[in-house]
Amino acid sequence: MRIEAVDFFYLAMPEVTAAADGSQDALLVRVAAGGHVGWGECEAAPLPSIAAFVCPMSHGACQPVAASVLGARLDSPADIAAIAVRVARNSMDLLQAPHTLSGLETALWDLLGRRHGEPVWRLLGHRHSAPKRPYASLLFGDTPEETRARCREARAQGFTAVKLGWGPIGTGSARADADQFAAAREGIGGDGLLMVDAGQVFGEDVAAAAARLPALRAAGALWLEEPFAAHAYEAYAALAAQSPVGLAGGEAAHNLAMARHVVDYGRVRFLQIDTGRIGGIGPAHAAARHADARGAVYVNHCFTTHLALSASLQPYAGLSRHDICEYPARPSALARAVPVAPLPIADGAIRAPDAPGLGVEVNTAALAPYLQQVEIRIGGRTLYRTPPLD
Amino acid sequence: MRIEAVDFFYLAMPEVTAAADGSQDALLVRVAAGGHVGWGECEAAPLPSIAAFVCPMSHGACQPVAASVLGARLDSPADIAAIAVRVARNSMDLLQAPHTLSGLETALWDLLGRRHGEPVWRLLGHRHSAPKRPYASLLFGDTPEETRARCREARAQGFTAVKLGWGPIGTGSARADADQFAAAREGIGGDGLLMVDAGQVFGEDVAAAAARLPALRAAGALWLEEPFAAHAYEAYAALAAQSPVGLAGGEAAHNLAMARHVVDYGRVRFLQIDTGRIGGIGPAHAAARHADARGAVYVNHCFTTHLALSASLQPYAGLSRHDICEYPARPSALARAVPVAPLPIADGAIRAPDAPGLGVEVNTAALAPYLQQVEIRIGGRTLYRTPPLD
Repeated sequence: MRIEAVDFFYLAMPEVTAAADGSQDALLVRVAAGGHVGWGECEAAPLPSIAAFVCPMSHGACQPVAASVLGARLDSPADIAAIAVRVARNSMDLLQAPHTLSGLETALWDLLGRRHGEPVWRLLGHRHSAPKRPYASLLFGDTPEETRARCREARAQGFTAVKLGWGPIGTGSARADADQFAAAREGIGGDGLLMVDAGQVFGEDVAAAAARLPALRAAGALWLEEPFAAHAYEAYAALAAQSPVGLAGGEAAHNLAMARHVVDYGRVRFLQIDTGRIGGIGPAHAAARHADARGAVYVNHCFTTHLALSASLQPYAGLSRHDICEYPARPSALARAVPVAPLPIADGAIRAPDAPGLGVEVNTAALAPYLQQVEIRIGGRTLYRTPPLD
Repeated sequence: MRIEAVDFFYLAMPEVTAAADGSQDALLVRVAAGGHVGWGECEAAPLPSIAAFVCPMSHGACQPVAASVLGARLDSPADIAAIAVRVARNSMDLLQAPHTLSGLETALWDLLGRRHGEPVWRLLGHRHSAPKRPYASLLFGDTPEETRARCREARAQGFTAVKLGWGPIGTGSARADADQFAAAREGIGGDGLLMVDAGQVFGEDVAAAAARLPALRAAGALWLEEPFAAHAYEAYAALAAQSPVGLAGGEAAHNLAMARHVVDYGRVRFLQIDTGRIGGIGPAHAAARHADARGAVYVNHCFTTHLALSASLQPYAGLSRHDICEYPARPSALARAVPVAPLPIADGAIRAPDAPGLGVEVNTAALAPYLQQVEIRIGGRTLYRTPPLD
């Protein structure tokens, strides 16, 4: 097969707020080849990501992503890897390119799986799709009371694990944060798993993050996620050396090397990878193997749709030791509209679907209200216009 | 002052080829505040970088760069640093943002310097603008003969130092590369400085790069630049441990942490920073101090205009030990048209200008033939249209 068409669809809620809710918009990618279609999702700013696909070439190492994809051969996983190598080389100086490629690469896997009638995880070499324990991924409330209520609600929905993130953490005193952590523990109950996501709020300030460790330990938190800026490996390592709570990080990794580094230099114990950012399912799979080899735990990063959720499960589907799964528990109406049906949770566990490709059907008919009509023109030439979604 | 307006101008040659010549297009930024104007240049794909300035917000940590800049206070270097902190936080998930910010941040320094009647390097705390030895930055020829001729031409123009990059290096045999290195040495003469830029061609293949070391040593190369992908610090360190030739790298750094890491993890001896990519002059200045503290040599990265060249000189203007300067020796007609006058080379040396701001006047009248007319619309709303250039 040859890749015949690549279409990007920018979807957004009618109102987008400054909350840390990444499900307020979405960038879907549809790929067509040999009579088959595959879908993927970029976890990325839609407009710059579309621009990175269609922009004019600046020079040989700053070409649009399209130049390395359209017309390329697609018969095997090796062909997908070859496309990724070409994008890395030809779009070396185009910073946004990995985010654009991520959803596209995922769509290539989906298409290839559908063509061969195999789930993506099997194409990756996994022999089974192991059960993962889904944790409800939530934002902290503005107050401990709100946080407690959100955790109770998640528990009532059947979740035995909860992660709280962002909100006021790190913006006030360590005491105020301790009240939040304690409220979260109360809400989820003594036997639930509790994780905390600081959303990079401490920058590179190790002392400020360390001041939160006693309360995290008292609340029995499994991990402290992203205390620092994504590249601040020195700070991660310095905190890891003194923390009784494991550190988690890696969601910002936009290539495999960054995933390695947050483990090897940053000493995180939980490596969180977003297939919608790292370049897709191929590099995420390599990151999972790296985490496994290093004794770290691989965890998917996902806060958007069940299309992205399935993609995020594929890389570590068969790695039984890595048994935790981020589950977007309060996604936007747009995110809920994307799949025809959500991935089921059965007996408290979720699995990568045993169905061709990603095993998720995109509900194109439901997406019309969210579709953004975009047009990009240079010198009278139309580089991009939102394609029909049907 | 408050930042009143930020205008991006996308310039391109009539024909852009796949050569590794980064001067075939340019993205200039003009900032207005308090009756003053400053200019900067992004070393970046223009269309995605413009999109990163104007795109709709995706969520609180994925806001357009404009949200952190327009209307912001600009009275001191600390205000510029505060803007950079806000962009890093508010545009955390917008991968292209650092490239967009780089030219913009440079323009803020230019504006501030003009307002205070001071060169940027003085605002940075440098007490003088030390002479640097310019090296002609060239691409390898397709054959050793072409390479030799280019080096001879540079020598005839007065350059006593030459860097050759890209071209066929690494794509054929080590023997073929050795012939290129020897030809370059012949062309520049026995007493000239010779540097080699591999343009990331070896990916992460340490053995392939190591196979070129004997010939580099025989040719008396001062450094081997970017043998590997930008993030492949493990490969850099492995090669550095066995190389008689110093390694150089860092041009792809799009934040200060990456600059630190290529020195601290990658063990490069020459840290090359592009102010048009790392986020501007502020982080480049911090990178220069880091290199100095670590005993490495800081070198500017510049392959485009003299506006970018002046910006690239400011961060290390007063650091006398760091006395080499990349000088674009065969820039495109577009790149030559940008400044009213180029930075002079006097007595074989170049210096950051002793003039307000960057000390470079932009020749707007000469740029009309290169100006690209861009329009970006979403849902009937125009997010960007090329502004008048006058």
